[in-house]
Amino acid sequence: MSGPGTSGPPAVWSSSGRQAPPVPSSAAEAERRALTALTRLVEPPCPPLVRLVEAWGACEVLERIASDDPAAALPPDSSGGAGARERRERWRQRLGRVDVDRDLALAARSGARLVVPGDGEWPAELADLGDDRPLALWCRGAALDARPARVAVVGARAATPYGEHVAGTLAGGLAQAGRSVVSGGAFGIDAAAHRGALLAGGTTCAVLACGVDVSYPKGNEGLLRRVAEHGTLVSEYPLGTGVTRGRFLDRNRLLAALGQGTLLVEAGLRSGARSTVGHARRLHRPVMVVPGPVTSPASAGCHVELRRGDAVLVTCVEEVLDVVGQLGGDAVADPSDPHLRRTDALGPDELRVWEAMPLRGVLRVDELCGAAGLTAPEVLGRLGALAARGLVQPEGGGWRRT
Amino acid sequence: MSGPGTSGPPAVWSSSGRQAPPVPSSAAEAERRALTALTRLVEPPCPPLVRLVEAWGACEVLERIASDDPAAALPPDSSGGAGARERRERWRQRLGRVDVDRDLALAARSGARLVVPGDGEWPAELADLGDDRPLALWCRGAALDARPARVAVVGARAATPYGEHVAGTLAGGLAQAGRSVVSGGAFGIDAAAHRGALLAGGTTCAVLACGVDVSYPKGNEGLLRRVAEHGTLVSEYPLGTGVTRGRFLDRNRLLAALGQGTLLVEAGLRSGARSTVGHARRLHRPVMVVPGPVTSPASAGCHVELRRGDAVLVTCVEEVLDVVGQLGGDAVADPSDPHLRRTDALGPDELRVWEAMPLRGVLRVDELCGAAGLTAPEVLGRLGALAARGLVQPEGGGWRRT
Repeated sequence: MSGPGTSGPPAVWSSSGRQAPPVPSSAAEAERRALTALTRLVEPPCPPLVRLVEAWGACEVLERIASDDPAAALPPDSSGGAGARERRERWRQRLGRVDVDRDLALAARSGARLVVPGDGEWPAELADLGDDRPLALWCRGAALDARPARVAVVGARAATPYGEHVAGTLAGGLAQAGRSVVSGGAFGIDAAAHRGALLAGGTTCAVLACGVDVSYPKGNEGLLRRVAEHGTLVSEYPLGTGVTRGRFLDRNRLLAALGQGTLLVEAGLRSGARSTVGHARRLHRPVMVVPGPVTSPASAGCHVELRRGDAVLVTCVEEVLDVVGQLGGDAVADPSDPHLRRTDALGPDELRVWEAMPLRGVLRVDELCGAAGLTAPEVLGRLGALAARGLVQPEGGGWRRT
Repeated sequence: MSGPGTSGPPAVWSSSGRQAPPVPSSAAEAERRALTALTRLVEPPCPPLVRLVEAWGACEVLERIASDDPAAALPPDSSGGAGARERRERWRQRLGRVDVDRDLALAARSGARLVVPGDGEWPAELADLGDDRPLALWCRGAALDARPARVAVVGARAATPYGEHVAGTLAGGLAQAGRSVVSGGAFGIDAAAHRGALLAGGTTCAVLACGVDVSYPKGNEGLLRRVAEHGTLVSEYPLGTGVTRGRFLDRNRLLAALGQGTLLVEAGLRSGARSTVGHARRLHRPVMVVPGPVTSPASAGCHVELRRGDAVLVTCVEEVLDVVGQLGGDAVADPSDPHLRRTDALGPDELRVWEAMPLRGVLRVDELCGAAGLTAPEVLGRLGALAARGLVQPEGGGWRRT
């Protein structure tokens, strides 16, 4: 970041105008301020910017964007040098509208904070998104649990009483089992899931397609406030950002990434919730689907997902927990404890899947079924539990030991 | 068969008492009379008797059973010589109650006929049952179609209006697509399936756990009469036989064997219809399952079957036909036509599966998925169509070219 008196460009990301920003209390704070600014420059996901921040840090990237010096041009990335220059020029023009101090004042007023990589509550599993990961997350409410104990519960806005009943029941059961229920804060299944978790006295997390200070939809204003009180509102969008159709779809990748698994409760053929399921598949996260009457258009999308053959049909919370792994005392044992072998805490079926995996190399789920003598839903469930313990990881179309 | 004047045992299977039976009009007729007698001696399935009849013919077997001469003992079979002698003695004692002429009179009165292997309407697919195949079938109504165009539609007696609606709709659609709907003539899903096929002007087949002249359950008397008028009542039990719990379960193997595939519409956890699904799996026939609300105990068994991962979730008749194969003009083209290559009539996906199969050797469904680039439900559907054309057959846990 250009300090006072340098010949660099004016630091336009402060409300003090074309002046250098106040010297931050620490390098970490400076990074946080720079990320606050950067989230105003791009519509996420923005892989080129994520790559630059990863390489140089947010302060350095912001300084280079702000520089008048053509020699401070950003390095070419995979999309080519010319594209990178144009992009940098676009970002640079937007710098004029950035005001970090105003954002911080807005944040203070709405009780929001920017959570950035490296923070204790930064969800490590977002790394699976690769360059599609968010630069940072705006959060309101309780600290996010860094432990992967979240389940995404998604479904149609146009839900039926059946779907809302099932979503609420399953979310309540998950909350009672110590899981945080992640959903999108929308009407229908989302609202039923948040409500079910809250009613069970558990925690829930609403990932929004707008700023965490924006109440959308209006009808869920009270529910979102209760989520902020007992759980967390999360968004990668700057404060005050409104929703768009594209943002709902982009937001869905965060739902899928934050959940250890994604549970689809009710979805019509064209429901946006199915895009969350698509993201979960791409992330090699288990997909669970609740069936419904074949006469109900609100379940037609669920049935299409089940017919693909790579989702697990679930009917009760026990079956969901079978897939995402039980969270016993053992499961959260400190893996760094040198007296604990990595596999000491495994249940018998988890051990069977673990032992079916080669020391090196990747096996597909169907191969693991054969090797472990378990069905596909069973193997997927154990893989989820093993992944939660950091013992296995998806790779290509299969799984390997870490 | 011992003729008049031989020194052999009296022919006790005729109502003319301990006299030789009337000379039958042909050897085939003699076999049919002998089979009529044999079905009175055993509770099917009876692999030892099936093996004997296959080896020697029914007349010869009956004669040896009837013989007073210990030298006419039946040959030992896999269960050992002593067991075979005891069994032969048991059968011999029952011969006294056998009266073929009375059975034939009963048959004439109720419009029933005995269909035996070799008859034009004998369902060739029963051969897949191996030694568990029935010795013969009592039938009332239309001739059975020897072409494998049957789908078993089964489910719970304690069905809901949802299940009955879906069963009726799917059965009607199958009937309109030229399929015969095979079911068990019971209350609930069975009745809805028969009714749906009849209402669509199609054909249907009730496989009973009692004689085809017995109306069970009484409440379905009218329905069973209509099935006999527009379709066929089928049973391996002699005329006048009543139902038992064991007979329902044994009957289920015939349902599974007569259907190219088995469709389970609604079943509680302990529904007997799930045993039909088990038989279909053992016969390597596709299993299709209709999901329902997870809140409905009447669908809980369906969901367990779907969670196994080897059944296809279906929601409409098109999806059922995808699994059991479309019955176009091509599909029923005479395979003996020398101008027609065996694969000329195949659709593009059928051809992909066909070409994915090695000239020799067996592939599992998951291997075929990879080789053909299709999902498991798609591959199963194409295999069904290819099997219907006699191009492929199940073997072990996989499929091979015929």
